[in-house]
Amino acid sequence: MLLERIEKENDIKELNMEELDQLAGEIREFLIQKISLTGGHLASNLGVVELTIAMHRVFTLPKDKMIWDVGHQSYTHKILTGRRAGFDALRKYGGMSGFPKRKESPCDAFDTGHSSTSISAGLGYVEARDLKGEDYSVISVIGDGAMTGGMAYEALNNAAHLKTNFIIVLNDNYMSISENVGGMSNYLAQLRTADFYTGLKKGVTNALHKIPTVGDHMIEQIRRTKSSIKQLVVPGMLFEDMGITYLGPIPGHDIGMLCRAFREAKKVEGPVLLHVLTQKGKGYAPAEKDPSRFHGTGPFDISTGEPLQKASKDTYTDIFSKVICDIGKHDPNVAVITAAMADGTGLSAFARYFPKRFFDVGIAEGHGVTFAAGLAAGGMHPVFAVYSSFLQRGYDQLIHDVGLQNLPVVLAVDRAGLVGSDGETHQGIFDLSYLGGIPNMTVISPKNRWELADMLRFAVQFDGPVAIRYPRGTAYDGYEKYRAPICYGKSEVIYEEEGIALISVGHMFEEAEKTRRAIKKIGYNCSLINARFVKPLDGEMIDELSKTHRLIVTIEENILCGGFGERVSDYVLKNHIPVQVLSLALPDDYIEHGSVDLLRREVLLDADSMTKRIVTEYVQLQQEEERK
Amino acid sequence: MLLERIEKENDIKELNMEELDQLAGEIREFLIQKISLTGGHLASNLGVVELTIAMHRVFTLPKDKMIWDVGHQSYTHKILTGRRAGFDALRKYGGMSGFPKRKESPCDAFDTGHSSTSISAGLGYVEARDLKGEDYSVISVIGDGAMTGGMAYEALNNAAHLKTNFIIVLNDNYMSISENVGGMSNYLAQLRTADFYTGLKKGVTNALHKIPTVGDHMIEQIRRTKSSIKQLVVPGMLFEDMGITYLGPIPGHDIGMLCRAFREAKKVEGPVLLHVLTQKGKGYAPAEKDPSRFHGTGPFDISTGEPLQKASKDTYTDIFSKVICDIGKHDPNVAVITAAMADGTGLSAFARYFPKRFFDVGIAEGHGVTFAAGLAAGGMHPVFAVYSSFLQRGYDQLIHDVGLQNLPVVLAVDRAGLVGSDGETHQGIFDLSYLGGIPNMTVISPKNRWELADMLRFAVQFDGPVAIRYPRGTAYDGYEKYRAPICYGKSEVIYEEEGIALISVGHMFEEAEKTRRAIKKIGYNCSLINARFVKPLDGEMIDELSKTHRLIVTIEENILCGGFGERVSDYVLKNHIPVQVLSLALPDDYIEHGSVDLLRREVLLDADSMTKRIVTEYVQLQQEEERK
Repeated sequence: MLLERIEKENDIKELNMEELDQLAGEIREFLIQKISLTGGHLASNLGVVELTIAMHRVFTLPKDKMIWDVGHQSYTHKILTGRRAGFDALRKYGGMSGFPKRKESPCDAFDTGHSSTSISAGLGYVEARDLKGEDYSVISVIGDGAMTGGMAYEALNNAAHLKTNFIIVLNDNYMSISENVGGMSNYLAQLRTADFYTGLKKGVTNALHKIPTVGDHMIEQIRRTKSSIKQLVVPGMLFEDMGITYLGPIPGHDIGMLCRAFREAKKVEGPVLLHVLTQKGKGYAPAEKDPSRFHGTGPFDISTGEPLQKASKDTYTDIFSKVICDIGKHDPNVAVITAAMADGTGLSAFARYFPKRFFDVGIAEGHGVTFAAGLAAGGMHPVFAVYSSFLQRGYDQLIHDVGLQNLPVVLAVDRAGLVGSDGETHQGIFDLSYLGGIPNMTVISPKNRWELADMLRFAVQFDGPVAIRYPRGTAYDGYEKYRAPICYGKSEVIYEEEGIALISVGHMFEEAEKTRRAIKKIGYNCSLINARFVKPLDGEMIDELSKTHRLIVTIEENILCGGFGERVSDYVLKNHIPVQVLSLALPDDYIEHGSVDLLRREVLLDADSMTKRIVTEYVQLQQEEERK
Repeated sequence: MLLERIEKENDIKELNMEELDQLAGEIREFLIQKISLTGGHLASNLGVVELTIAMHRVFTLPKDKMIWDVGHQSYTHKILTGRRAGFDALRKYGGMSGFPKRKESPCDAFDTGHSSTSISAGLGYVEARDLKGEDYSVISVIGDGAMTGGMAYEALNNAAHLKTNFIIVLNDNYMSISENVGGMSNYLAQLRTADFYTGLKKGVTNALHKIPTVGDHMIEQIRRTKSSIKQLVVPGMLFEDMGITYLGPIPGHDIGMLCRAFREAKKVEGPVLLHVLTQKGKGYAPAEKDPSRFHGTGPFDISTGEPLQKASKDTYTDIFSKVICDIGKHDPNVAVITAAMADGTGLSAFARYFPKRFFDVGIAEGHGVTFAAGLAAGGMHPVFAVYSSFLQRGYDQLIHDVGLQNLPVVLAVDRAGLVGSDGETHQGIFDLSYLGGIPNMTVISPKNRWELADMLRFAVQFDGPVAIRYPRGTAYDGYEKYRAPICYGKSEVIYEEEGIALISVGHMFEEAEKTRRAIKKIGYNCSLINARFVKPLDGEMIDELSKTHRLIVTIEENILCGGFGERVSDYVLKNHIPVQVLSLALPDDYIEHGSVDLLRREVLLDADSMTKRIVTEYVQLQQEEERK
């Protein structure tokens, strides 16, 4: 096993060139083995084994800085920097992250998780290096999908002026998570087939014959001629037009070629883009065949590729997927938008049934939000299905284009709350705050699968922006009969008693319900209210509760700052309501990877911890009142 | 006066072609006259007079949809759609907005204010039109500066697939607000000099002779050859590479040419980009000479161009400008970043003294934030000076790249709070909330000019992200002697009495101080505390205050949700502190244009209103206590 000779960074330099191919094979086998047990990102990692080996061969860590865009493709990098043992607890609580982390290794130059940041961060390193008179290489590795994000373009635009070396690796695997979209994608498709070194002269000569003479109305002809010249002569011109040297396309599974290309790239005095063609899932037939399914996967059977635990119950995403299709059938004004997440958000079915009303905007949440606003201004009722943490990219556009014009845009905010093994960068724990602060925005969250359906139907009828937030994972199927119509601004009473009242937001209902039972067992009465509306707040409900309760407890899987609990506290204080409020929410901190159940215990939002906190507070309250 | 014959949209179609030039002259004179009295955006509006006339000539309103990127160049559009009379109260409270507003006219298809949104919104309209089987033109007008924003690229990337007409006007005036930067800018500079109809054949033939033979190490040669072919043959190739038909460059002050180009563009079945060359400030010598100074201007003397009211006192921006230069002199690790606002943020001086440590990233706040994070990871201490409302574009990057890695990035958040005449899109009223919710972020705000200096020096020494928020306009120069060292997490007691305690955030100190005097006059004692730190909260101070005060009043120019007041309320509730909290903050709404003084009265944050609110609350509190 060559792999055993790789104990730490730069050990790979001890191998000879012939051994590297063997190493690549061993790494692939290792990754397939380990990820089949733990789950994780597979297809993207299998695609960059040779690329990573070549980088580690040519560059020296931690001196040189490698920045992995998104970062889910950094597994080989982790193996080559002494973290092979970490794969047993990959993405587990307390174990190794599935993304680069500066706190995990000095060889991880920059934390990533969201798309399209690597060129910006790399450029920062380059400028810092030059200002400080230091000497190291900076390599940003970015996928073709991430190139659809505007930040990547902003950064390329800025990199253009550089007079010193900066290597950008365009890891082109023909798709981002699912299929790629847009002009850039088509452009790259042309590049892939271009032959860099031949046909140059012949192509131009042929094209020349087609150039028309000067005259009017010849725009179309010229356009066609230009297009044919372009395809034949000038691969990479788009990048070169921006001032960036283009090298490629380079076969991405040929370690020798890759090493040569990197050595060549190091010599360029300025920004250089290496266009590397890789195959997602390379070397594992099931992943080659269905890379989207193996983008992020749970444990699976290596021989068949089939998941070990088949989902028996619907997820919230499944419910969304079904209901939005049904809505689409009856309402021709409903169109849907995804930012390169058709599968993840459950919009693939809608795309099949109503392809004209389905828009994949690429990894471009900012554009997605304003595009939705434009659709709404034009008379449609768009539904943008998007992960909570990714929608952060559209924050300004939500304020500036949706809220300000009070346009009927529905945000289906998926992966809200704790998401589990993806960790810090992907937790959807800010949305109640950043959405709640936007004027004209209505923010709602369902307690169970049926309420998600009802809320979605409510939202597409509502004349203004509505955000519905729901979490990753199995949709709660309790309390089916509690299905009173969604009424604007109104919460829902589930159990009405006295003393303690729990108001839970969205999916925390399940845990809140358990908490209530535990409190009852201890011997206290306890009401349970499903908030439904985070914004606007149901003030009347608070007024009513305060008449018969001493303690109102808010429960939400969101940071405290700007969340539901603060809405309630503020209402109580402002109206001099004589009731104590206990806000149970997430701490002011990033929350690492691990199972959601474990993480909830860690942040004291599981039923046990909540029960203790609530009872302690209530007892203290009673004692205080007795003292008075 | 031809202008008098333009009473409403489409009236311009009654004029003959010869009269249009005269009309352009009259509009210019009108704009210079009016803006010299009211102030407003001048240079950009003078640049698009002919462009707007041509658009109104070829298209029909409100059927066709014109979307003005940023929107500060929409004055001629307003004149031609029956809003000439509105210019007497331009940007005044209750008067006409300086930006397009759907609520102002059906001819305003989409509200704008921030940069780079117009192609996204226009694309939304186009798709809605096609889905609904309607028939109208959509024209998005975007400046070359706005083209540096990633959203524009995201939208272009999406527009590429269109099979129906969508007209994008690239209004190229060689600069955004100040000077333009980056690869796209250089690329456009080349296009400007390209001749669309001639030299095509000759250029290619010459270039062909320079193509080298196949071989190794010929990258540089090929690059140069490609570059020379490109310049001669293929203007607009970058856009065409993305799938967008390029027409241009078109002289932007020739109405006949422009009309022809628009008619031609209407015929294209797909997205078409019209590259129009205009001159900022056209027709008014002082503005032609110094367009940046006339981007947004106060009232001025038409004959000289000199401002009528010369600023006698330093603004907060002036103070920042001076202090950051001084810091730069002593600390070689401090580098500064602006997003195309070197003048507006006061960084021009730093740029002159330390050009290598000055970075203008273009209108690209998202990139700017992550670039800053990269600089910090590379050992620098970057200061990103940026307007509060524009930093919203970098929200995700602040969470994901700065906060998560706890990197020492200083955010100099200018134009925080109410900004006045720019109105809804530019009010900096969300930052305490969106910054305060980010883990690891420290948020501070100075009470006066000296404290801004002290805080800036504190921030560049601090090992973690720090945001300093300060407003537009004159820096308060009272309370100079209150200059105790900035101590992490500590507020500052200005007057210590009992009963009522005011805690003011940042520049609201001036109004809070007036409020305290008014309260004293009425006969109540009143303490006054300068919060200094919004995050972390100075809990000890609250504990102390609660011992001798019944009412704590928080005062901030930020929305209530997630702001300072909620931090305090939450602390009080959580710790069972027996004190009433009154949070004075902005309502959950967008706030229109007008003078800051007027707006403050409108939202009840002026000293008079606050005094009444506080005294009413205090009296009620006393009565309640007496009843007990």
